[in-house]
Amino acid sequence: MKIIRDPIHGNLTISEEELRVLDAPEMQRLRRVRQLGFVYFVYPSATHSRFEHSLGAFHVAGKIATAVGLEKKEIEKVKLAALLHDVGHGPYSHSSEIASNFFKKTTHEIYTNKIIRKSAVSDALEEADHNPDEIAKIATGRKRPNSDIVSGDIDADRMDYLMRDSYYTGAAYGIVDLDHLLLKLMMNKKGLIIESGGLSAVESMLIARYLMYPAVYSHKTSRIADAMFTNALIECIQEKAFTIDELFAMDDAEVFQNIRSHGGEGENLLDSIERRDLHKTALNLSKEELGENFEKVMSLKSDIRSLKKLEAEITEECGLERNTVLLEVPHPQYKKEVKTLISDSGKLKKLEKFSPLVKALHEAQWKYWNVGVYTSSENIKKVSKTAKTILLEI
Amino acid sequence: MKIIRDPIHGNLTISEEELRVLDAPEMQRLRRVRQLGFVYFVYPSATHSRFEHSLGAFHVAGKIATAVGLEKKEIEKVKLAALLHDVGHGPYSHSSEIASNFFKKTTHEIYTNKIIRKSAVSDALEEADHNPDEIAKIATGRKRPNSDIVSGDIDADRMDYLMRDSYYTGAAYGIVDLDHLLLKLMMNKKGLIIESGGLSAVESMLIARYLMYPAVYSHKTSRIADAMFTNALIECIQEKAFTIDELFAMDDAEVFQNIRSHGGEGENLLDSIERRDLHKTALNLSKEELGENFEKVMSLKSDIRSLKKLEAEITEECGLERNTVLLEVPHPQYKKEVKTLISDSGKLKKLEKFSPLVKALHEAQWKYWNVGVYTSSENIKKVSKTAKTILLEI
Amino acid sequence: MKIIRDPIHGNLTISEEELRVLDAPEMQRLRRVRQLGFVYFVYPSATHSRFEHSLGAFHVAGKIATAVGLEKKEIEKVKLAALLHDVGHGPYSHSSEIASNFFKKTTHEIYTNKIIRKSAVSDALEEADHNPDEIAKIATGRKRPNSDIVSGDIDADRMDYLMRDSYYTGAAYGIVDLDHLLLKLMMNKKGLIIESGGLSAVESMLIARYLMYPAVYSHKTSRIADAMFTNALIECIQEKAFTIDELFAMDDAEVFQNIRSHGGEGENLLDSIERRDLHKTALNLSKEELGENFEKVMSLKSDIRSLKKLEAEITEECGLERNTVLLEVPHPQYKKEVKTLISDSGKLKKLEKFSPLVKALHEAQWKYWNVGVYTSSENIKKVSKTAKTILLEI
Amino acid sequence: MKIIRDPIHGNLTISEEELRVLDAPEMQRLRRVRQLGFVYFVYPSATHSRFEHSLGAFHVAGKIATAVGLEKKEIEKVKLAALLHDVGHGPYSHSSEIASNFFKKTTHEIYTNKIIRKSAVSDALEEADHNPDEIAKIATGRKRPNSDIVSGDIDADRMDYLMRDSYYTGAAYGIVDLDHLLLKLMMNKKGLIIESGGLSAVESMLIARYLMYPAVYSHKTSRIADAMFTNALIECIQEKAFTIDELFAMDDAEVFQNIRSHGGEGENLLDSIERRDLHKTALNLSKEELGENFEKVMSLKSDIRSLKKLEAEITEECGLERNTVLLEVPHPQYKKEVKTLISDSGKLKKLEKFSPLVKALHEAQWKYWNVGVYTSSENIKKVSKTAKTILLEI
Repeated sequence: MKIIRDPIHGNLTISEEELRVLDAPEMQRLRRVRQLGFVYFVYPSATHSRFEHSLGAFHVAGKIATAVGLEKKEIEKVKLAALLHDVGHGPYSHSSEIASNFFKKTTHEIYTNKIIRKSAVSDALEEADHNPDEIAKIATGRKRPNSDIVSGDIDADRMDYLMRDSYYTGAAYGIVDLDHLLLKLMMNKKGLIIESGGLSAVESMLIARYLMYPAVYSHKTSRIADAMFTNALIECIQEKAFTIDELFAMDDAEVFQNIRSHGGEGENLLDSIERRDLHKTALNLSKEELGENFEKVMSLKSDIRSLKKLEAEITEECGLERNTVLLEVPHPQYKKEVKTLISDSGKLKKLEKFSPLVKALHEAQWKYWNVGVYTSSENIKKVSKTAKTILLEI
Repeated sequence: MKIIRDPIHGNLTISEEELRVLDAPEMQRLRRVRQLGFVYFVYPSATHSRFEHSLGAFHVAGKIATAVGLEKKEIEKVKLAALLHDVGHGPYSHSSEIASNFFKKTTHEIYTNKIIRKSAVSDALEEADHNPDEIAKIATGRKRPNSDIVSGDIDADRMDYLMRDSYYTGAAYGIVDLDHLLLKLMMNKKGLIIESGGLSAVESMLIARYLMYPAVYSHKTSRIADAMFTNALIECIQEKAFTIDELFAMDDAEVFQNIRSHGGEGENLLDSIERRDLHKTALNLSKEELGENFEKVMSLKSDIRSLKKLEAEITEECGLERNTVLLEVPHPQYKKEVKTLISDSGKLKKLEKFSPLVKALHEAQWKYWNVGVYTSSENIKKVSKTAKTILLEI
Repeated sequence: MKIIRDPIHGNLTISEEELRVLDAPEMQRLRRVRQLGFVYFVYPSATHSRFEHSLGAFHVAGKIATAVGLEKKEIEKVKLAALLHDVGHGPYSHSSEIASNFFKKTTHEIYTNKIIRKSAVSDALEEADHNPDEIAKIATGRKRPNSDIVSGDIDADRMDYLMRDSYYTGAAYGIVDLDHLLLKLMMNKKGLIIESGGLSAVESMLIARYLMYPAVYSHKTSRIADAMFTNALIECIQEKAFTIDELFAMDDAEVFQNIRSHGGEGENLLDSIERRDLHKTALNLSKEELGENFEKVMSLKSDIRSLKKLEAEITEECGLERNTVLLEVPHPQYKKEVKTLISDSGKLKKLEKFSPLVKALHEAQWKYWNVGVYTSSENIKKVSKTAKTILLEI
Repeated sequence: MKIIRDPIHGNLTISEEELRVLDAPEMQRLRRVRQLGFVYFVYPSATHSRFEHSLGAFHVAGKIATAVGLEKKEIEKVKLAALLHDVGHGPYSHSSEIASNFFKKTTHEIYTNKIIRKSAVSDALEEADHNPDEIAKIATGRKRPNSDIVSGDIDADRMDYLMRDSYYTGAAYGIVDLDHLLLKLMMNKKGLIIESGGLSAVESMLIARYLMYPAVYSHKTSRIADAMFTNALIECIQEKAFTIDELFAMDDAEVFQNIRSHGGEGENLLDSIERRDLHKTALNLSKEELGENFEKVMSLKSDIRSLKKLEAEITEECGLERNTVLLEVPHPQYKKEVKTLISDSGKLKKLEKFSPLVKALHEAQWKYWNVGVYTSSENIKKVSKTAKTILLEI
């Protein structure tokens, strides 16, 4: 057993077999992939990587799996799945995923699945007498109930990243009362369940995420940098500078270097980002302001080709050059309802029905959500007007 | 200038004049009055007193007053008012206040007002060239806008107690992002205003309080101890062991000693508390369960004589002795709506209207609120049934 | 199993049997005995009691005992001994002990031993199938090697109080790297041993104590208050207000009340303390300044009758009244050498020989040690001169 | 004024002019240079960069400069100097510096000086009406007394890095009681002075550094990686892959990429490092073990050409290939005596004379210092024997 020191969880214990998985180059790459992408523009100290987050998730998953009474072998599986759950993330995860979506349907989960099933990782898993296929399913949330521990509403991933992102940014909201949650979590055939005595701890965790969203995850500056970088990636992929598969295998520095050595529009955008000469906000439209167009605009977020068409339309209408205007439709915080069940005097209830606060988060999230249109300072007025007309009339 | 070390705020700076106020016996008494009463039964480490909380509020008030641009003399007033805002609290504040209400309308604010206006405190204030009357008004929230800093929705009192109670109990919820709030607070003629960029910080603070309520302030065990102690006080006052004025001038140890030296039913109750031989919950009724009787029951919380009549009725109906059955109607968290205004692109809006989450807190609070009926283990069944009938039929 | 929340260690787990020991009135008394006596004059937030420290020591002892591989029953014994190790402390421990020494040889360990062997505590221990006598021996360091965990150089008592006192005062020095120490502790027949890889962790802990001494434990203000209170106790005991046995059974409030109800010189001194009208330092003499008289003066610290004779001599020589001049000879930090052994590549060495830093602490401690002579402001000059002459010529 | 959030110091305030210095590409490069080089092999979370440390030092320097009463313009200079003090560090600072020393005398201070005097940085400084030359002098400790704040025994640099390195690694030793120090620092014509009341705070800070040395700064694993990387750099520079000037202008990723694209022995070493296939320790010799050869060996640490000759001699003697054996002579913690003065009742004394603990650090440091000889696992025995003979006989 080896001990690894972590500022969030103290001493992490890791076995020889697990260490071999950690030492696979696919996992080591995560050392060079920042957890929060361009958020370091806003919080200079947010330099932490997906590597130590993966270790943290591994540790927390072990605690949850033990607390809900899984057997030794199952605990091992859940821990390994948590260790590997982010292995498929590309550099600047959001940008990589959105840029790829311009060309084909893909997500980091697909790469996570691939890597766990066929790479140095799968070799290490098999040596440790585990079935890579099964680990991949748990890691990507497709083997309930146990996969709930890695990928659910109250999972090891989220617990670790809230605490860690809060610690590294200095934003004060990522409180997770892990000790208390561990006392109140149970598992049945369907998934994780929380005892009603743990209501505050769950509410607190869901709210932590809600508050970290505007403060960190969706900060204006990093959204703009992300949007510019997305276009740089699209330019490069379109011009065959690299493939999507190659992109997802790079680290933060490699993708910068590849864009730079390719040159062209991609490099121009990257230069602007590095000089912190970022586009400015020309327009923000909230759900309310989008009105009946909300659904249509929302659908663009997973159909980047159409989104970029609309972006091009606004750009042309303004008589501007490609990449001068950027359109961004962010994911909402809560895609689906919170599925967690709460056990109230023995009866299982939906958490959303039980807690008015959790229910309120669904509506409240829109306060912090909006569509963004970005451009250079001198074009703000023109772009704002045009984009507004187009977005409200599509 | 003197420096006082505080684990929450670091070094506190206090002037010679302010020190003289702090050294008044009325303020020194607060060293011996626990901030959280019987909560130490649940959180043994919650031994902190109203004294260091008052110092903390003094410090935070100074920061807010400076941040919103008050003048030097006004800053001094606000700080002194914050230092003194709790000086009227009796020992085991809740119990003292409820027991007194059985005999006459009174509150700790009345005593705060009295002490600031006439005692060693007022002498020290006058020496420092302040008008005690004015300080008393600020301390009790009657001189807006400046009194908002001491007693409002986002005040120095609450900021300090949330951080401090969280620190001393180890309950993880009392996060206040003071640094961020200070950047976003403004003041106009009507009171404190928050800029929309500070929304997360305000939401976080209101939620911190919401979550501390079930975890700490309204923990079952301390509620029962409070209820038993309230009856002990009523017995003693009724039997002239001490007057209400005398009660409010005692510290935690003195009131115990006075009850003990008086003897009788009061001492019996105190003995049970000290042996931790507490009553058990016979019945809890939520707002929903109280149905149309909710308003009637709610009105009892500030009419203790009627409440105790009802308690007596249940007791008799069960054929039990006085003090064997206790009825408790707690204050809700949010008596009134949140009045704070938020400035959104220059327009002032009500925070409750602006933030769906803040609005949700009003409904959500009832999840953690209920009327309690307590009795000894052997009588639970009988009392539960009787109390239910009576409470639902009043 | 019951869970108790602690801000230092998180969730503490305590069994039904252990809870019965904790509920004994002798243990509950510790809730009302401050851990740091008059230190709250300097650090207002230092209100924590010996009760939560005892719980903390209980928790840490369990961790150490488990880490070094003790058997289940032995772990239980060590934990209970740690829980009980402070049960014999009187109110304002230092003062109680010094005042008692004026009349007869006694220490809090004697009372700890008595209580564990014969009281509600021993009943609870026997119910839990433990031999009170054995627990008493472990608690007072007389059953090595296991008693090392409770009472040694690197024990659960010290680990907890350093962390706790630092947390509650806000003094930044009480760092104990518990996680790291647990990995490096072993036990052989003679006692606790530290692996050489744990050298930093041990050095750090010993230095933490060294730095807490001047900042907290030996702060001038609390030393003077202690000295005044000691004389108040001597007055009361001499005048039969209470016996030494009675004193050691009181809590902080009770001893104040008893002094007050007895009146006389004791009450005068107490009044001065409560008004914070403390004596001032007339003279401090360091080891160096005491020169060859150092040993003689030092011997007074455990012969209070002789010390008080000398105090009386100085007082008379100055023509002052009893209790106007106080002489204090504090304990040094390190009474004896550090006995802990360190295992360096398999060889056991004395830590003091192995670590030049640990060795240096012995000499360094005298920088923060001095004999104090205190008196009222107006007599400082006279007392200083007289005391100096007498102390350097005895 | 702009606000930057930092997890160590809270909100940092930075002016428009200072922001322009921060935005210079030379400063932005520091975002991509890890503060602790290969320490992330041991502490995965130690990903923080010299950029946020520079911001931290800037903030602390401002606090110290204000506390000791400097004038506005001087405060600005000291802050800017602190912001820029690390701008000359190459990637993997230790390795870059040692590798360069093989070819010519150079240090990061020389580059710091150059950059501040001629680059985008100097332009920004001049725009802000500062003399780059003067700032460079302060930044490199050549303009006392004010430069003491940036580069002395108790400077802003050290205060920030101890706190920050401790925070990011999770190693518990980097305690700096900044608030307390600020109250006790003064400045006279010669430099920073500490009042005797701040002795604990200074001792604590010096000890923090002493304890961080073995735990973090001089951890075995990162020492070996550093040594391997140093040789990789020497290979590349010798083969004209890049110049020393070019090296010092790279970031962490660039130097890796440059080594890789050059190929050869440098790439082989880098591959081993990246696979974590590190050399093992063949021999460690302490100061004591080096005996009379200590001074000779010590002199090698700043004469890398001679050191590498000796390394080659050992390698040949063992019949091994170049770079299979590595010889490392680390810097001691305390090159020179602590120069800080302490003011004891108005008299200035040398801290080392005043505090036995500080004095002890000089001897104690050797406990954690040793010369290292590293090689591949299979050659350990042979190399150990040969190296021992050679090192003890030079």
